[in-house]
Amino acid sequence: MSFNQSTPISRLTALFPCFDWLRDYKRTDFTSDLIAGIITAILLVPQGIAYAMLAGLPAQVGLYASILPPAIYALLGTSRTLSVGPVSIAAIMIASALTTPEIIGQGDPVTNAMILAAETGIILLLLSVFRMGTLVNFISHPVLVGFTSGAAILIMYSQLGHLFGIGKLGCGLNLQCYVDHLNHIKPIAMTIGLLSVAALIFFSKALPHLFERLNVNSLLATAISKSGPLLVVLAGAYIALKLSTGDGIISPTVGSVPAGLPDFSIDLIYSNTWQLLFPAAVFIALIAYVESIAIAKVTANLRRQRIKPNQELIALGSANLAASLTGGMPVAGGFSRTMVNFSAGAVTQMAMLIAAGLLACSVLFFTDVFEHILKTSLAAVILVAIAPLVKPNAILKYWRYDRSDAIAATVTLVGVLSMGIEQGLGLGIAITLLSYLWRTSRPHLAVVGEVANTEHFRNIERHDVETWPHMLLIRVDENLTFANAGYIENYIHYEVIQRPDLQHVVLIFASVSYIDTTGLEALENLQISLATNQITLHLAEVKGPVMDKLAQTSFVEKLTPGKVFFRTHEAVTELSLLNQGACMK
Amino acid sequence: MSFNQSTPISRLTALFPCFDWLRDYKRTDFTSDLIAGIITAILLVPQGIAYAMLAGLPAQVGLYASILPPAIYALLGTSRTLSVGPVSIAAIMIASALTTPEIIGQGDPVTNAMILAAETGIILLLLSVFRMGTLVNFISHPVLVGFTSGAAILIMYSQLGHLFGIGKLGCGLNLQCYVDHLNHIKPIAMTIGLLSVAALIFFSKALPHLFERLNVNSLLATAISKSGPLLVVLAGAYIALKLSTGDGIISPTVGSVPAGLPDFSIDLIYSNTWQLLFPAAVFIALIAYVESIAIAKVTANLRRQRIKPNQELIALGSANLAASLTGGMPVAGGFSRTMVNFSAGAVTQMAMLIAAGLLACSVLFFTDVFEHILKTSLAAVILVAIAPLVKPNAILKYWRYDRSDAIAATVTLVGVLSMGIEQGLGLGIAITLLSYLWRTSRPHLAVVGEVANTEHFRNIERHDVETWPHMLLIRVDENLTFANAGYIENYIHYEVIQRPDLQHVVLIFASVSYIDTTGLEALENLQISLATNQITLHLAEVKGPVMDKLAQTSFVEKLTPGKVFFRTHEAVTELSLLNQGACMK
Repeated sequence: MSFNQSTPISRLTALFPCFDWLRDYKRTDFTSDLIAGIITAILLVPQGIAYAMLAGLPAQVGLYASILPPAIYALLGTSRTLSVGPVSIAAIMIASALTTPEIIGQGDPVTNAMILAAETGIILLLLSVFRMGTLVNFISHPVLVGFTSGAAILIMYSQLGHLFGIGKLGCGLNLQCYVDHLNHIKPIAMTIGLLSVAALIFFSKALPHLFERLNVNSLLATAISKSGPLLVVLAGAYIALKLSTGDGIISPTVGSVPAGLPDFSIDLIYSNTWQLLFPAAVFIALIAYVESIAIAKVTANLRRQRIKPNQELIALGSANLAASLTGGMPVAGGFSRTMVNFSAGAVTQMAMLIAAGLLACSVLFFTDVFEHILKTSLAAVILVAIAPLVKPNAILKYWRYDRSDAIAATVTLVGVLSMGIEQGLGLGIAITLLSYLWRTSRPHLAVVGEVANTEHFRNIERHDVETWPHMLLIRVDENLTFANAGYIENYIHYEVIQRPDLQHVVLIFASVSYIDTTGLEALENLQISLATNQITLHLAEVKGPVMDKLAQTSFVEKLTPGKVFFRTHEAVTELSLLNQGACMK
Repeated sequence: MSFNQSTPISRLTALFPCFDWLRDYKRTDFTSDLIAGIITAILLVPQGIAYAMLAGLPAQVGLYASILPPAIYALLGTSRTLSVGPVSIAAIMIASALTTPEIIGQGDPVTNAMILAAETGIILLLLSVFRMGTLVNFISHPVLVGFTSGAAILIMYSQLGHLFGIGKLGCGLNLQCYVDHLNHIKPIAMTIGLLSVAALIFFSKALPHLFERLNVNSLLATAISKSGPLLVVLAGAYIALKLSTGDGIISPTVGSVPAGLPDFSIDLIYSNTWQLLFPAAVFIALIAYVESIAIAKVTANLRRQRIKPNQELIALGSANLAASLTGGMPVAGGFSRTMVNFSAGAVTQMAMLIAAGLLACSVLFFTDVFEHILKTSLAAVILVAIAPLVKPNAILKYWRYDRSDAIAATVTLVGVLSMGIEQGLGLGIAITLLSYLWRTSRPHLAVVGEVANTEHFRNIERHDVETWPHMLLIRVDENLTFANAGYIENYIHYEVIQRPDLQHVVLIFASVSYIDTTGLEALENLQISLATNQITLHLAEVKGPVMDKLAQTSFVEKLTPGKVFFRTHEAVTELSLLNQGACMK
């Protein structure tokens, strides 16, 4: 089904959804977008640098990924408020991809990150070309929650060392290793780090409440509380500069950040790591798309706007290609940043264009400030941003509602922690698919009888209904396909064997909207084997499209003397008359 | 659901289904089984030798696989007539597994075939333990037809060289190669081969018709026509012996076959090829099970008996382990042999026990006859047996009924021919799964209206029905799961956006039997985003089990003021009263 009407304007709007809002863009919209853009940029600067560090890349990579990619998304995306740029989950996936033993010796990390972005973009665009976007549905919510919880725990673990000025931890479950590390804690770094965490929590939790009580203008309140990360990072840098002897003894800093805009470059096509990085890019592309579309939907639904999933593939794919060409890393729509942009009043993607412009200014003029930023401050920013992604409550909720979903979430989480990011996600997807296939291969079927004095039919196991020894009514509650044809055949044969006086089997197809070749063959086999045993097969309540398809085959012919009844009640009446058998309750 | 009642006898019968027929086994049953057993044995001897050759193994491997495995199946299987032993499709899969470059240098083929049988057995038993037998449904009929057609073509190609006395052909699409081979044709071998083919076609096609016309007793007719392969093979050996100078110049023979029963042996566990052979064993196990269960069902349905899929996994798994322990190759239920057994009057598996006994006698006393059997005769047996498996008509039929099924069959066939047996099958399965996932992620949904003066609701696109500007009725025709939740949400939002005066959305859940966590979350999100836009969400016709599950959550509470209506008509009546809005057609 296509939702697009085909006028020239609608076609242009389909390709460039920005025309949709540009057409009647108002002055007041611009005021709102300008404020939201500034607030988002204030958040984007520290996040860009922090997520680049998380991915194991120089700070500028995260900044570059915050300029052209969001601008491209602004032109192509269907969400008016999605903030595209570096995100934490993708960042740790990038870190994992760049540090596999096969990759470490091959090419420099920056080039490899650009290749990952290029591959992510190409994969998303291919998914769009083949209209396969719906396949990402197969990352179910429980798997996604298990995955993000696991990844968030890994991220928090990876930042603990930085918070205490130790650097990278690699202890796993080795307790002695942690004890040894205690000696290397840098007290000043730790103090700055812990104070930063406290300040960030104050900014994000306490400050909004306080402003609300004091009746501060809500926009001003948002602006101040969202500048927490930037203030914390700048304060840390300032303190360290004042205390420092210049040799980084207090806490490691980000280090020199080249000034100026990134160059366009396609040198990366000569690298030999494309193939090695490809599997990781597949996972990054899936997660980038799933996360972006999820948050885009939330904000769009709140304003009764619509997200077009296929156009999102194009927009995110192009944004990633843009990241690749301008020295960036894979990008996606960030959850917290989008919510900030939305609640700061962004009306259209103009806000993100403004934010991207401000980021461009920042790499032109402020890089000498950035190089003094402490890793411990960034670790604090990451820790506070990431903690809400660990969701044990969600998994408990799944446990109460649907055990198999809870198991899928838990296995994915444990898989991520024990086997690694991609392996855990792969395991989660595999489990989801297997359990899905297993469940759909055992469809719901019911032997039904007639509710006395009505024309309603209900499950004989749940209701007190009338049945007949010569007639078996079976309601098929799912489409008849290769996935369940064998099970359905088996079920019907079992019910038939138990009824020695049986003469008619009626299949009620009210819930069947599709029968594939294997399903059709199963029906044909069923008809033949029933006929061998002097039993006639009938159908009832066959839907229009299903009947149209069956009519193309010789099946209805072969069914004779069996019939296709419009309503089940008609079948019961006619077959009872045929038989004149006694009714029994 | 379990079909087993739990009495001691039924439990014994569940483990050893043979008790089911042994309990009231009659003398007349034995007479029938004896005749069927002899006829099947007559067919089993040449087939066993031929399929061993096809697999690239010595003749005795095929014979050994025809002794203990069918006997074990007789005790454990639920089919009364399935003839287990070497089969052609598995044989070519074994040949393919044993001749990969990684395997060729490792261990001898006989040991590797035993390992394949052991792995096949273990895989089948594991599928049984985890009750995953239904997963083989995911080899759909179209893929199976494409696969067997492709494999049959490969088999026929592999036997052409033997038929003409040339040996193995390896020309592929190189025409010159075939021309070169013409010089190596052995005229006598070719003559015997072509005459054998003619004789076999006569035995299998013309003779039964002739006997029918002459009113020959049908059992005698079956016995004679089914001994065709044995007679052809023996005649070929006799002629060659008479003409031969002893140096195999006329046609290669099977060669020496050791006399005596096979030894039990578990030496194979020390081999280092287990891991290399495992992927091939997975495919062999799947195909062995799919083929066996298909033919078992056909014969069981004809006599109103029941096949228990999980018990079949145990029986076939054990039969394969038995093959492995007694020097055999992977086994399965053979299609043609089972039909012969069935139509020769087999009542129970006693027939196969007799056949297995006769096979044991043959390896004790007749191996010096077997070693003179000509490969050209065996090639003729294989060619005539395998030709009906190539089914272009079936693929044409799929094309008319369901394009995507026809494409799956064709791709599998072409894949088998161009990429190899396992790769082709893997490709077919992958395509089936992808298209299945894609289809189930786009469920059928319909905006419905009320048929005037009735309480029936129909699709507004197909019928002339009453609708209301303030109320949207959407019928969901499939279970609400992670696979389609996104699509359904998107569909509903699209319909909502187009109706500015909307106040109520009613989802009709008559066809919904299951809602998973992702589906539930989608409903919750939908409710929230509709509420934000002053629209109330309602449900109607929710099934009992679905309602039970929803009641465990806070969803119904959150729905307020939305309601769950028993019938759609009630929803329409109540919501119209609430609104007092004008009706429009």
